[in-house]
Amino acid sequence: MENKLAELKTRLQEVYNLNSAAALLGWDQATYMPPGSAASRGRQLATLATLSQQKFTDPAVGKLLDELQPYGESLPYDSDDAALIRKTRKDYAKAVKVPPAWVAKYSAHSTVSYQAWAQARPANDFKSVADLLKTTLDLSREYADFFPGYEHIADPLIDGPDPGMKASDIRRVFGELREQLVPIVKTITEQDPADDSPLRAGYPEDEQLAFGMTIAKDYGFDFNRGRQDKSPHPFMTSFAIDDVRITTRVQEGDLSDALFSTLHEVGHALYELGIDPALEGTPLAGGTSSGIHESQSRTWENIVGRSRGFWEHYYPSLQKQFPGQLAAVSLDDFYRAINKVSRSLIRTDADEVTYNLHVMLRFELELEMLEGKLEIKDLPEAWHARYEADLGIRAPSDVDGVLQDVHWYAGLIGGAFQGYTLGNIISALFYEAALKAHPDIPQQTSQGKFVALHGWLKENLYRHGSKFTPNELIERITGGPLRIEPYIGYLKTKYGELYKL
Amino acid sequence: MENKLAELKTRLQEVYNLNSAAALLGWDQATYMPPGSAASRGRQLATLATLSQQKFTDPAVGKLLDELQPYGESLPYDSDDAALIRKTRKDYAKAVKVPPAWVAKYSAHSTVSYQAWAQARPANDFKSVADLLKTTLDLSREYADFFPGYEHIADPLIDGPDPGMKASDIRRVFGELREQLVPIVKTITEQDPADDSPLRAGYPEDEQLAFGMTIAKDYGFDFNRGRQDKSPHPFMTSFAIDDVRITTRVQEGDLSDALFSTLHEVGHALYELGIDPALEGTPLAGGTSSGIHESQSRTWENIVGRSRGFWEHYYPSLQKQFPGQLAAVSLDDFYRAINKVSRSLIRTDADEVTYNLHVMLRFELELEMLEGKLEIKDLPEAWHARYEADLGIRAPSDVDGVLQDVHWYAGLIGGAFQGYTLGNIISALFYEAALKAHPDIPQQTSQGKFVALHGWLKENLYRHGSKFTPNELIERITGGPLRIEPYIGYLKTKYGELYKL
Repeated sequence: MENKLAELKTRLQEVYNLNSAAALLGWDQATYMPPGSAASRGRQLATLATLSQQKFTDPAVGKLLDELQPYGESLPYDSDDAALIRKTRKDYAKAVKVPPAWVAKYSAHSTVSYQAWAQARPANDFKSVADLLKTTLDLSREYADFFPGYEHIADPLIDGPDPGMKASDIRRVFGELREQLVPIVKTITEQDPADDSPLRAGYPEDEQLAFGMTIAKDYGFDFNRGRQDKSPHPFMTSFAIDDVRITTRVQEGDLSDALFSTLHEVGHALYELGIDPALEGTPLAGGTSSGIHESQSRTWENIVGRSRGFWEHYYPSLQKQFPGQLAAVSLDDFYRAINKVSRSLIRTDADEVTYNLHVMLRFELELEMLEGKLEIKDLPEAWHARYEADLGIRAPSDVDGVLQDVHWYAGLIGGAFQGYTLGNIISALFYEAALKAHPDIPQQTSQGKFVALHGWLKENLYRHGSKFTPNELIERITGGPLRIEPYIGYLKTKYGELYKL
Repeated sequence: MENKLAELKTRLQEVYNLNSAAALLGWDQATYMPPGSAASRGRQLATLATLSQQKFTDPAVGKLLDELQPYGESLPYDSDDAALIRKTRKDYAKAVKVPPAWVAKYSAHSTVSYQAWAQARPANDFKSVADLLKTTLDLSREYADFFPGYEHIADPLIDGPDPGMKASDIRRVFGELREQLVPIVKTITEQDPADDSPLRAGYPEDEQLAFGMTIAKDYGFDFNRGRQDKSPHPFMTSFAIDDVRITTRVQEGDLSDALFSTLHEVGHALYELGIDPALEGTPLAGGTSSGIHESQSRTWENIVGRSRGFWEHYYPSLQKQFPGQLAAVSLDDFYRAINKVSRSLIRTDADEVTYNLHVMLRFELELEMLEGKLEIKDLPEAWHARYEADLGIRAPSDVDGVLQDVHWYAGLIGGAFQGYTLGNIISALFYEAALKAHPDIPQQTSQGKFVALHGWLKENLYRHGSKFTPNELIERITGGPLRIEPYIGYLKTKYGELYKL
């Protein structure tokens, strides 16, 4: 069995290396690649994706997994090898259902589609990407149909980013959340809005980046094993446990964009950097789901990074860095500004309270497209209509409408967005558990210290990589299933202090 | 035959894509990779190299090539498909002669050897790498012996970077060149040296980079299909005909380092960018040899970039960019400074006249080691002795002696250096032919225009990629074999104006 396990690990390492190479090509595409080479990059990514798929779905891997199953089940459930065999068997069963031809086609398509979006968005030219998006929808449906017997056509698509989650469950949880959120948003937006003009006072790019990097370092981001670059759309990517990269974008006219997107991506990165090195080179060497991952980005961006205690510590240095812009702005006013609640157009700029409305409408649009109830040609208007209905505003064009997010242009339709709101819910759930173990976390935060929180998250979450499913982790950490109460409680407490609720 | 050719191209495209991905990983390693991830990057590169080799030496490729041979020979010699079959057959025949066990051993060894060198050079510790270098020499001889029937043991090693070139031919050409060069160097270095202190007056990094990029653009470097980044050692790399990247390093205390290394790498890049897009994804989609490639870097760096006419156009803008450093320096003095001839220790810093002495002594040392006339333990002293004999100087230690260049520590012994001097010789040969076709090239240069030269090189050289061998190209372009006269003529004319010759 030792030999078979070693052979399995050698094969998985090869797949991991191919996936790492592909991830680096993707990172390069979003950061430094010259625009003229989109087509060749697409071919390179297709080759890597095809080979990775071929190597992973090699019948020899299936045979090893079958032979190792009894051994895996004989080990303690929590052991690395048990988890490796268990998780790889699941992934393998899914992967062998997807034909290599589809993988190659999808990989090439998404590269072209991404590049087209990058040009279409500034040009407000949805028409130029509509046919590509139609193909994406077709590919998404094809993918779902490789898994017959689903309850909802979106389920196989959701199962990739959020294993074990189903459209029906998510709809239910989102329904409960919406019921709580809508009256809160209404109450708040009827009151005088916070003044966030100081955030737009003009902040030089380099100084913004340097300030974000200071906090990243304090959070525990290891620059020996990671770096930050600029890209049109901020993201985190990982090529190994010791090579985890984040990107951001900087607007001189908006202090909060680079700052909070940096804290957000650092949160993702801390998760990846915190994985047990013993899992390197295996399918366990990555965060376990989109929702759990997002819980970490939102923890470090919002629960920590937009808290009053955090800014009690950092605001004096921010004022020192930008005296012309902030010397006359009190901590209270700054805190209100970075937590301003308003009905806005851009998901990534949205405040904590309205953010989930942005996400949930996208999730619903995905389901409707997959169900065949919404055609691509009608999507731009459906987007506007939904914003008018849920947020009471309408984007002046598709730039901040249907062209706003990269997801559908660089991936599949279905499963792209639910993780964001699941992440918000889970962030509060896990933070509550961390607080129980370390009641002094808020006090540490107000001193610019994050050792207790980071350490607790590493011990209870990060180091496990993908050893456990999202629901298993929630059960291990909270002793129960996913619940929205801690998140609602968090919002009500925080925003109850800022507004009359 | 059409189907077989299409299948061959599909297989070659896959190999090309794997090589492109590996090249991007190498680029990243030299530019942006965080230091802590060297080990995982090594594993990723090993996976890509192994897969590329496996895919290329697949017996199915050999079978297709055999079946296609008569078809290839029935086509016009110059046709893309004839060249593809011809060149791929040669590469395949070579690749299958090298046992995978040797490849694995060599790959592991060169990684260890490179790391040892990186530590040995600053420590001036040749002894710590001597045994590794002995293994490199053994591996080099083993490699040569996979190709029995060679005239000289270095021939199979030279045939990789400079296909069709033989040690005996290169020795003859280098002998002629040395005979001409030695008295020129003697005559020049007996005269008062040029004053190059203005080049060390202190030049801000960003402005140096911006100035280099202006010239790159004027040369015709297409920023839509390429870019420049910084790295410890400048290089050019290509992931596709439409993704060609160069790197440079900048020293505030040396204006010429970034400037001329940029023009050098742009020369390499123009070659790769100029390849006919019809050759994309095949073994023809790259420069044909080390010598021909170097001819282009040296053309744009030296023949053009260090010419008087060039600076008649660019010097006023350089002075405007750096008034504090250059306002009081005349064009004549600047021109003399960037063309200063001196007996120096470092190959990469050497001027046009002495440069080839550095290269030729390394080439001779390689041959002597391979012939068994020079043992590794005697190499450091042989290096010093040769520098004393050829250049009249001796390095104070091995740091700038035998530990100076990375080549023998990261690759094989044999074939590592001759391309540099072949390139110088060929640059003048091709430039002479270009001048015959477009006598107004010097006049264009002195107006900052390069359309005629760039266009002629693209038409006669760049677009062909690797369709022709170096000797075929020289024959096509000049109507004869490799000759040193144009190069000697170029040096005598240029330096005869700067010095009494």
